[in-house]
Amino acid sequence: MHKLWFALLALSPAFSSAQSAEESFPAASNVPGSVSPAIHRDGRVTFTLKAPQASSLQVAGGDGLGHGPFALIKGIDGTWSVTIAPPVPGFHYYWFVLDGAPVNDPGSRTYFGYSKETSGIEIPEAGADFYALRNVPHGQVREQWYLAATTSQWRRALVYTPPGYDEHPAKRYPVLILQHGMGEDETGWTRQGKAQFILDNLIAAGKARPMIVVMDRGYAGAPGAPPFALTANTTLGDIQRAFGRFSDVVIHDLIPTIDASYRTIADREHRALAGLSMGGMQTLFIASHHLDSFAYIASLSGPIIRGTDPGEQFAASLRGPFDTKTAYDGLFADPAKFNREVKLLWLGVGSEEAQLHASISDAAAALRDSGIRVAFFESPGTAHEWQTWRRDLNDIAPRLFR
Amino acid sequence: MHKLWFALLALSPAFSSAQSAEESFPAASNVPGSVSPAIHRDGRVTFTLKAPQASSLQVAGGDGLGHGPFALIKGIDGTWSVTIAPPVPGFHYYWFVLDGAPVNDPGSRTYFGYSKETSGIEIPEAGADFYALRNVPHGQVREQWYLAATTSQWRRALVYTPPGYDEHPAKRYPVLILQHGMGEDETGWTRQGKAQFILDNLIAAGKARPMIVVMDRGYAGAPGAPPFALTANTTLGDIQRAFGRFSDVVIHDLIPTIDASYRTIADREHRALAGLSMGGMQTLFIASHHLDSFAYIASLSGPIIRGTDPGEQFAASLRGPFDTKTAYDGLFADPAKFNREVKLLWLGVGSEEAQLHASISDAAAALRDSGIRVAFFESPGTAHEWQTWRRDLNDIAPRLFR
Repeated sequence: MHKLWFALLALSPAFSSAQSAEESFPAASNVPGSVSPAIHRDGRVTFTLKAPQASSLQVAGGDGLGHGPFALIKGIDGTWSVTIAPPVPGFHYYWFVLDGAPVNDPGSRTYFGYSKETSGIEIPEAGADFYALRNVPHGQVREQWYLAATTSQWRRALVYTPPGYDEHPAKRYPVLILQHGMGEDETGWTRQGKAQFILDNLIAAGKARPMIVVMDRGYAGAPGAPPFALTANTTLGDIQRAFGRFSDVVIHDLIPTIDASYRTIADREHRALAGLSMGGMQTLFIASHHLDSFAYIASLSGPIIRGTDPGEQFAASLRGPFDTKTAYDGLFADPAKFNREVKLLWLGVGSEEAQLHASISDAAAALRDSGIRVAFFESPGTAHEWQTWRRDLNDIAPRLFR
Repeated sequence: MHKLWFALLALSPAFSSAQSAEESFPAASNVPGSVSPAIHRDGRVTFTLKAPQASSLQVAGGDGLGHGPFALIKGIDGTWSVTIAPPVPGFHYYWFVLDGAPVNDPGSRTYFGYSKETSGIEIPEAGADFYALRNVPHGQVREQWYLAATTSQWRRALVYTPPGYDEHPAKRYPVLILQHGMGEDETGWTRQGKAQFILDNLIAAGKARPMIVVMDRGYAGAPGAPPFALTANTTLGDIQRAFGRFSDVVIHDLIPTIDASYRTIADREHRALAGLSMGGMQTLFIASHHLDSFAYIASLSGPIIRGTDPGEQFAASLRGPFDTKTAYDGLFADPAKFNREVKLLWLGVGSEEAQLHASISDAAAALRDSGIRVAFFESPGTAHEWQTWRRDLNDIAPRLFR
């Protein structure tokens, strides 16, 4: 619907392509002083790059930017440009393809995604200020270094402490562990997701309880190893091994570090685990073995595993009916016990995430039919992208620690 | 000398170009999993990029990388590569020039420099572990948002709190305000400079007093305005106006915010101001009007202004003899008073910063001759680059608040 509305605006005479320069503004994700990418008042976006010697230039990007790649046209001074139809509001990764090579836009800040530093564009959403930097008390985001015994490696977590944390040195807080997706890292939730501002705004409005939010790097490979990534040959067992090692880091290194370094309420009733995409898979995987550590669980656009055979290809393990008795090592096998122990099971997905939407909503229905209490949230008009996950967090945080 | 030593190694048979693949390792500044750039045991560096359709590719970079740009050679599979002579140890910005357009290396993390996200390479220095992540207690680096009345803008400072800060809620700490150079931002001192690890290591060794370090963005332009940058027409008056506005932010917004948000010792005897390059200029400029706010002053590779006429071109204002009576609005005119009030005046420069080295050492000599107590530090073998400034901080921090 959003796309349609923008498309209609773009077709109307009042929003024709004859926009003046004053009718556009630099994206908030640009480096200071860069006028490109420029967002027009009607939502269209113009990308510009000076490359006089280049033979071809396209812009391409993640879900929500549109059906690219889009070819830029070379001007007489060697500056290429293209104006594209209004993208979906929110944050989108993008990159240039310069004579065939994918490269960043020097006009943009970079954001860690696709396992590298990637350009990103912030498209404003009219009326949505829940993730804006507003004039409310602000928490802090802190770099927390710790030596993980599991991997014998120094790791860095980012830790959000709520407003007032330093002013009330006797007060203790519940903890949300919040994980990123594949190819991203511990910076994703604050840089792309604006989790700190979502929490600031919810806490200021009295809608969420002040809490500590811990964002770690969801990989735990050997020193120097590339981060975990899916291939066509990845089996369910490969996933379980990779997630198992990360689970060990969370349970044996991260949680003890956070409980020792911050004024937490260090019990399962005051600890939540959530993650997006791969992080959502990790959440259900970790919860299935460590329900003694978490009473709140949320999977945001997380693929739901149906299979139980470690030798099965991962892609195949996502297909078929969801058997609530056998899935996730029997996590959901006893609904009465699960409902007693788990204060919140939350599943969410964007309306435009075609297969994931079917898979997650089907699993949620099966869980509900089996007697499991489950919250299901759908982000309207968004796909596998950060605007979905920002809305998710805005829905989840008020439900925690109540 | 360093360069010569490396050059000799490179010429010796034991370090010939016939190195095996095992003889190289990915730079610590690479994105995880990227093997390029690769550093050879002899210090040479190989840059690689796959770009089958490109017609030309060079790598170029900041001081210390070498006398580039260096042309890459295209292999049969479309992968370009070049191996360059050992760069100076430390951190160097670099970028590819792909068919004439400067772009980042997708294999590298990015670092804010040259007013944009720029690739960087970390070249290890044998025996230098003062900026390494070591097994010592670590402080935290915190994002501190504040609304600056001077500019009516939200600003973000990064604040290092020393190890033990949270564990001792009654203890108060002195404050070092530490500024980046032109084209950089508040992230420079921690990402490129590793200031947090330098402080952690000094504090662990008992060489520096535990202190809070505040790193802000050294620009205070109107909302949306590009950050301050020098041009051929910039006058001394232009500089004074830009720095004056930033000075207002520091004095009227930043310091009150830090004193209200952290357990500082909020007097001039426990507050230091330091900066590199442009930040060094800002330090002397701000100190010349606000000696009531700082008792410790350090300018790291900061151009020394000789002129006093606001209409004079900035470049010209750097030339000529340094008149200790008139420079910086008379900051140094009364040596006895200055020495009474200022606990540390510190000037430093890299031995390879040709004009700056002459200018800064000349000013230091003139100050000393006039009776001003001044510490002068020279970083051997390094130019206008982060290895110089890491060494500077390692020299300065132990002298503060004693």
